[in-house]
Amino acid sequence: MSEPAQDPVQTPDNPTEEVFHDDEGKPISKKAFKKLQKDKEKAERKAATAAKIAAEKAERDANQVDCSKEQKRYGKLPMNQSHSRTDTKFEDINTINASRAGETVTVRVRVQTSRPTGGKMCFFVFRQGVSTIQGIIAADDKTISKQMVKFCADITPESIVLVEGKIVKPEEEVKSCTISCAELAIEKIHIVSDVSVRLAFSLDDATRPESAFEQDPELPRVNLDTRLNNRVLDLRTTTNHAIFRLQSAVCMLFREFLIERGFMEIHTPKLIGAASEGGSNVFKVSYFKTSAFLAQSPQLYKQMCIAADFGKVFEIAPVFRAEDSNTHRHMTEFMGLDMEMAFNEHYHEVLEVLEELFVYLLSNLKERFAKEIEIIKKQYEFEEFEFLPKTLRLSFKEGVQMLRDAGVEVGEFEDLSTANERFLGKLVKEKYHTDFYVLDKFPLAVRPFYTMPDPENPGYSNSYDFFLRGEEILSGAQRIHDADYLTERAKAHEIDPSTIQPYIDAFKIGAPPHAGGGIGLERVVMLFLGLGNIRRSSLFPRDPKRLEP
Amino acid sequence: MSEPAQDPVQTPDNPTEEVFHDDEGKPISKKAFKKLQKDKEKAERKAATAAKIAAEKAERDANQVDCSKEQKRYGKLPMNQSHSRTDTKFEDINTINASRAGETVTVRVRVQTSRPTGGKMCFFVFRQGVSTIQGIIAADDKTISKQMVKFCADITPESIVLVEGKIVKPEEEVKSCTISCAELAIEKIHIVSDVSVRLAFSLDDATRPESAFEQDPELPRVNLDTRLNNRVLDLRTTTNHAIFRLQSAVCMLFREFLIERGFMEIHTPKLIGAASEGGSNVFKVSYFKTSAFLAQSPQLYKQMCIAADFGKVFEIAPVFRAEDSNTHRHMTEFMGLDMEMAFNEHYHEVLEVLEELFVYLLSNLKERFAKEIEIIKKQYEFEEFEFLPKTLRLSFKEGVQMLRDAGVEVGEFEDLSTANERFLGKLVKEKYHTDFYVLDKFPLAVRPFYTMPDPENPGYSNSYDFFLRGEEILSGAQRIHDADYLTERAKAHEIDPSTIQPYIDAFKIGAPPHAGGGIGLERVVMLFLGLGNIRRSSLFPRDPKRLEP
Repeated sequence: MSEPAQDPVQTPDNPTEEVFHDDEGKPISKKAFKKLQKDKEKAERKAATAAKIAAEKAERDANQVDCSKEQKRYGKLPMNQSHSRTDTKFEDINTINASRAGETVTVRVRVQTSRPTGGKMCFFVFRQGVSTIQGIIAADDKTISKQMVKFCADITPESIVLVEGKIVKPEEEVKSCTISCAELAIEKIHIVSDVSVRLAFSLDDATRPESAFEQDPELPRVNLDTRLNNRVLDLRTTTNHAIFRLQSAVCMLFREFLIERGFMEIHTPKLIGAASEGGSNVFKVSYFKTSAFLAQSPQLYKQMCIAADFGKVFEIAPVFRAEDSNTHRHMTEFMGLDMEMAFNEHYHEVLEVLEELFVYLLSNLKERFAKEIEIIKKQYEFEEFEFLPKTLRLSFKEGVQMLRDAGVEVGEFEDLSTANERFLGKLVKEKYHTDFYVLDKFPLAVRPFYTMPDPENPGYSNSYDFFLRGEEILSGAQRIHDADYLTERAKAHEIDPSTIQPYIDAFKIGAPPHAGGGIGLERVVMLFLGLGNIRRSSLFPRDPKRLEP
Repeated sequence: MSEPAQDPVQTPDNPTEEVFHDDEGKPISKKAFKKLQKDKEKAERKAATAAKIAAEKAERDANQVDCSKEQKRYGKLPMNQSHSRTDTKFEDINTINASRAGETVTVRVRVQTSRPTGGKMCFFVFRQGVSTIQGIIAADDKTISKQMVKFCADITPESIVLVEGKIVKPEEEVKSCTISCAELAIEKIHIVSDVSVRLAFSLDDATRPESAFEQDPELPRVNLDTRLNNRVLDLRTTTNHAIFRLQSAVCMLFREFLIERGFMEIHTPKLIGAASEGGSNVFKVSYFKTSAFLAQSPQLYKQMCIAADFGKVFEIAPVFRAEDSNTHRHMTEFMGLDMEMAFNEHYHEVLEVLEELFVYLLSNLKERFAKEIEIIKKQYEFEEFEFLPKTLRLSFKEGVQMLRDAGVEVGEFEDLSTANERFLGKLVKEKYHTDFYVLDKFPLAVRPFYTMPDPENPGYSNSYDFFLRGEEILSGAQRIHDADYLTERAKAHEIDPSTIQPYIDAFKIGAPPHAGGGIGLERVVMLFLGLGNIRRSSLFPRDPKRLEP
């Protein structure tokens, strides 16, 4: 309301003379003053009416909030302490499609993004694992209030919400979501768990393909360290969900294949009394009043199981390496997929099992996990993995010859450097069109003490490595099963036999000839998917500089 | 040959006088001397003839050796270095039965016992894993020489031999072997790997049932420490083969059940930056220039995977406890079978999955591993394991009441002692006829800081334990998924939140309500099979006093 017009000023020295002024204090006539007053009163009445109307509208608006609120259509739920069960069906969003249009469903989803438009609508991308679906809410002043829409617009990305909504067939495909032929018209939305901190990065930024930066180098890029420092958030990307589904699959397929062939799963100790296998690169543990060491591999123990007649064994377990290597392919803790097997006549019986295992692994990954591979490919854009139905097996000698033919200077009995490994992989790929091959008969000198020498070619041994995209992912060999010869070879490698006495003793009571191998799980996943860094295929990687999270 | 009789002594001082002496130097007559000489010559000729006959027999015997030797029917093979492949079929002895009588097969077996009889025959018990078969060899002077039989008799038990033999249907069942309807008539036998030391015990002694000692307390008993000190030998018993087949099966069934229900396998780090969960009982590791700790459980990491939206996860991995407990059920390293799962409304959704998992596990062990169970039962003589198709679930309060009704003094909010656990198990078994049940709603004070309190009953929590034969084998709960409340509860347990910051941070970016549990693999196997000591269900057990073999 505007200030009332000034009253006529009565000056004490002129009490009877009426003087009239206008709003700015200028003297005016009595008539003019009266008119002014009437106008003002009219304006006041008008303002009062407007205020009344506004108040009534506010009251109506307030009633409209109640319509959503009273029907308990939105809000934040109290912390779930398992008060009760309603047996509501919580849908997997992957079951939602256009043919179910009209159905009302309940879903619990993560808010990936929210985009309010004009105060009356809000669009969501909801996420569940590797899948996304669009959600829409629009105020209608009957069931959905503007307040409810505002509540939606304020939900922080990465909050978990419980949504009840009607399945709607959108006018055009929702290209931004994995579920493109259906969306959810939100009828109820409640926050189950919200975000109380600023996110280190958005999931959109963390999922961006490498190629996008070529087009626009200004786009925010989430580097690996930032990802690993905020690993839980980073793991939520559809890419990471797919990577770890695939990691899980590799273990499953490894076991499937071996259990089918009569292998037995074993669990060997990681705490060991003496630093075996030479004693370098081993972590020391305080063990009550003495010290223990962390096993660098289950090698000696899986062989002891063979000496105990278990015949065919495998183990999936962490292995620990105290190597101060800060490369793209080294970690201090990684998962070893190990197998060991007694053979009848020739270690190639075992090598064949391992080759078949890999063909099984690679072909089943491609067939059964095509969806996950596609998702990862969107971000990492790797080349299709090629392999042969019958694995290519070259001798080390042949490998050296191929390198020499290509102009690389390399010694006959010299181990392959990482660069030479990769280059050989390239040569093999060009010549044989495979990203997977085996190199057999490595030089004896570059292998561990327990490796069986080749019986005919001095300087070589009954050992092999497997390569994926030019990098080693499996190392294996026939092992020495004769106690005296094993002792001799240990000494030749400057290993004190007394530090591995229980291992050597195992062969004094008779052991069959045997061979085996160990696979680095994270390397297989990294190389198959072309991830470029082993930390991307480990949930919570450990290296000399990282022990957290 | 005997010494020739003494020549007549010619003394220089009496050259012409002939003096005759007998063998003892007494003078005798010339005639007597002549007779003596004749007798001697006769004896010499007789001896020569005997020698000739013996030599001829030896030559014949030597020829007989050749018959076996020339046909290369026995001997010790050189160390197998994978010289060649003959593609001989090596049979599994389990495929041998009376219907194959007459067939010649090749088997590689362990000699469990050998029993020579009368120099012309030898009986063997041959072993392959959990199976045994009788082998017989008898000299026939045509193909099987006595020398070959002697070679057989000299083979040390536990040597590995390659046997070619004919399948024979024995006149009566061979009760001492698992394969009783067939035996092997040995035609060739070669040692693949022999035993170069005195065995610490015989496999027969190590496999003897407890009841045998009741009948004859003088029988050699192999105690647990001797077994563990000579673990490779001990592991060869049919009982141990069956125990570890069963241990392997528990892991397989655990995974089978969970993978079928959409669970994902994870691998979380065992090397951690800070001592979590209170910091006691944790092993410290030298980690380059700093220290790390060994994870006491995957608890915090599996929950972080839930915060990363993995939904349903499991892990099979070693866990480490630096507890100086020297009991029948504690080890410093054991296998944890862990699962964690987001739920929609109530933690009982998860509890139900765990209960179903156990019913699946127990029933499949009984059905699919009946043979192994029978073998173990022969030595350990445990009672049949009883369980209900729908798991019995009691509240902690009900458990306490049952104990009180039975006269045990126990506090309302007091944790169960091992003795009370067992006694309650006995009461439950009497009343409900089950060796497996669940206790729900433990007192809050006796559970870890991250346990969700019961929303209605102060002092209790949303947590549970599973029991097999009255001992705890699973511990689990709904976890707190709210970062602020988690911090508050950590502090209440005197845990510095900064030591578990990455864990708490995971819940600041939104997490669904979730619950889970961890199973001790070796405990499940020990209790299901009534082994009485957890070291019997661990390949190479670790306790405060044992780090080897």
